[in-house]
Amino acid sequence: MSRAGDASRPIGVFDSGLGGLTAVKELRAILPGEDIVYFGDTGRVPYGSRGRDIIISYARQDIAFLLAKGVKIVLAACGTVSSTLLPEEATGLPVEYLGVVAPASAAAARATRSGRVGVIGTEATVASGSYQRALAGIDAGIVCTTAACPLFVPLVENGHFAPGDRMAEWAAEEYLAPVKAAGVDTLILGCTHYPLLAGTIAAQMGPGVTLIDSGREAALALKDRLEAAGLLARTRQLGKADYYVSDEPTRFHQLAQIFMGGADDVPARRIEIEDYHL
Amino acid sequence: MSRAGDASRPIGVFDSGLGGLTAVKELRAILPGEDIVYFGDTGRVPYGSRGRDIIISYARQDIAFLLAKGVKIVLAACGTVSSTLLPEEATGLPVEYLGVVAPASAAAARATRSGRVGVIGTEATVASGSYQRALAGIDAGIVCTTAACPLFVPLVENGHFAPGDRMAEWAAEEYLAPVKAAGVDTLILGCTHYPLLAGTIAAQMGPGVTLIDSGREAALALKDRLEAAGLLARTRQLGKADYYVSDEPTRFHQLAQIFMGGADDVPARRIEIEDYHL
Repeated sequence: MSRAGDASRPIGVFDSGLGGLTAVKELRAILPGEDIVYFGDTGRVPYGSRGRDIIISYARQDIAFLLAKGVKIVLAACGTVSSTLLPEEATGLPVEYLGVVAPASAAAARATRSGRVGVIGTEATVASGSYQRALAGIDAGIVCTTAACPLFVPLVENGHFAPGDRMAEWAAEEYLAPVKAAGVDTLILGCTHYPLLAGTIAAQMGPGVTLIDSGREAALALKDRLEAAGLLARTRQLGKADYYVSDEPTRFHQLAQIFMGGADDVPARRIEIEDYHL
Repeated sequence: MSRAGDASRPIGVFDSGLGGLTAVKELRAILPGEDIVYFGDTGRVPYGSRGRDIIISYARQDIAFLLAKGVKIVLAACGTVSSTLLPEEATGLPVEYLGVVAPASAAAARATRSGRVGVIGTEATVASGSYQRALAGIDAGIVCTTAACPLFVPLVENGHFAPGDRMAEWAAEEYLAPVKAAGVDTLILGCTHYPLLAGTIAAQMGPGVTLIDSGREAALALKDRLEAAGLLARTRQLGKADYYVSDEPTRFHQLAQIFMGGADDVPARRIEIEDYHL
């Protein structure tokens, strides 16, 4: 049961850094009237090579920050967090909490013709088995091949995402070999940073392979959930987006602007994430 | 003036992660009787792509942890910290605080014949100009060429440091081009992670280029400082080394063992670094 005024509250989105902006970009397009509060944990990025306990502890601080901003729903726009602090395990939160794994898996199951689906993600995501479980839950006949790509997030966060970037191309060649060899026709970009490398990944996979953007699918799922809960903003005005980071904002600002294609200005503010606790 | 008992206290060494072990390895060899407390901030690695304020705030917490362990001297075995929280600026500490920049620069100035010295380091290290200033202070005639290698630390921390690792080779080819083009005869590995890639870097630079290991040079300088202060341990027993990290210790343990060549077992313990403050 939604309280009066809940619908006008912002959507909360967080990620370890830049990656979650792939979901924000989609949200701005499909829900233009919504306000968004984004937090990128740039002071502690990357998450995907860290241990389970610390990922959960960082994610809980990130959620606490968004709750302090009065959000009506929280999206973990981060494959690592979505695979580690599972929505079904994150009980006791005052608002709904969504991840990217279920929406991206559902989209992949719809897209595949051959039943051979690839998943690329961080080490923590691949080790968790989250996507395999989600895909098996939808269709036990799907054959799933996973590959960890530990340097993709550092590459993106260091600005190596322009088409033709040699370091990104080399990393893609190295990491994608097993999913190519498995002959998948659908590849889940299981980390929200990876759509920034979509051109490089698509070139490496070759034609005929459908890439599933987990941030985009999560944004679509979030719209459905707000609709079902009666929490869609009732306004014709363009919503505003506020960006917060845990390191100084200059690099985030520059890279985010390149990535958002100038559609949004993203003047992020620095906050002390260690001060927030659930 | 050293207090009675000070000499028997441990040496404190810290780094963002694995890199500082290059200094520990040297310390164990040249000062076998000393106890060492090592802290690797694996929960927040890397430092070198972060902003100045957050690097200083993390470094101060790292130092606070070592002081709580009763160390007699602190070595920032980290090029980024040494370039950002300068020894001459870190006043008010109860023990001496050393970095790697001055010792590595002195060694490079001794080694060069042509006067053309290269420095590779993290983005924060290169942007700080720390090595250029140190080299110019020793010999104004030295021509210094720098290159930032932002992915070297993520590569090492992800275990990409074995000879022949393709990702490491590609990164070295990309990053070392400007220092090769400058015709340097001496190259400072300005980050303590880089000696783990020494084979790859040496192969790329070709024969005739002397690599300066900043962790090794800092260890030698630390010995001199302890000697001058009358703080060398007065024992013939082998000292012990205790390792602490801020993420779960498994990966650190595995990689550290490979790197230390089995010389030391490194069963690290996890601590909550956010709890420590100067």
